[in-house]
Amino acid sequence: MILHKNAEWLLGLTSDKPAATNHDGTMLVRIAEIEVYPEHLEAYLNAATEIQQKEEPGVLCLFPNQMKEDNTQIRILEIYASKEAYQHHIQTAHFQKYKQGTLHMVKSLKLQDLTPLNNETINMIFKRKQ
Amino acid sequence: MILHKNAEWLLGLTSDKPAATNHDGTMLVRIAEIEVYPEHLEAYLNAATEIQQKEEPGVLCLFPNQMKEDNTQIRILEIYASKEAYQHHIQTAHFQKYKQGTLHMVKSLKLQDLTPLNNETINMIFKRKQ
Repeated sequence: MILHKNAEWLLGLTSDKPAATNHDGTMLVRIAEIEVYPEHLEAYLNAATEIQQKEEPGVLCLFPNQMKEDNTQIRILEIYASKEAYQHHIQTAHFQKYKQGTLHMVKSLKLQDLTPLNNETINMIFKRKQ
Repeated sequence: MILHKNAEWLLGLTSDKPAATNHDGTMLVRIAEIEVYPEHLEAYLNAATEIQQKEEPGVLCLFPNQMKEDNTQIRILEIYASKEAYQHHIQTAHFQKYKQGTLHMVKSLKLQDLTPLNNETINMIFKRKQ
């Protein structure tokens, strides 16, 4: 008899717990730390607001914020369900429009990659699925 | 006739758009930037994981992460529906247990207050309501 890994685990035939369906180890979480030239701030905010509103499969979170103590400092929480979802995202027309359209507005950009303390709670916090 | 602010706006009697029901201007969004002493890292991660799993009204998001490039650097996205929700949160027994229990583990703490670019999309991203 051939059993699915999940069934094997449920029946106690293996101690290997299967990966969560929606959020396996390839999920990408990061905070993008962006500094914008003051003279381009308004245009940048418009572009970032526009791209945030697009919904795409596998893009669980795109949440841009301005820092209160320095409003040229932008922090975007980004969560992608997988590397493939991220690769798809950066090839979309709306991402390319944002990226190319804001290149001259951005003074510095650091992509700070993160590891969530508990992947399981992501489903409790974020609405969008893979 | 006395009209609610929302009705006035819907009827075109005022140009002041009322604040969204769930997320008015008093919502608090921040990234807590925490550095933990390496010798206390495991104990700190346990405490932060435990408090994340509590559900409370008005606590829309408590999302702790480790930085990949330095795993003693913690970044927690916190969203509270209002100042009152935040004040309630920091008085709960589980927050006090976390706070008092981890004081000696924390090398530095900076609460970086943020302004979301678009409050309306918070309902698209985050599950929990006020």
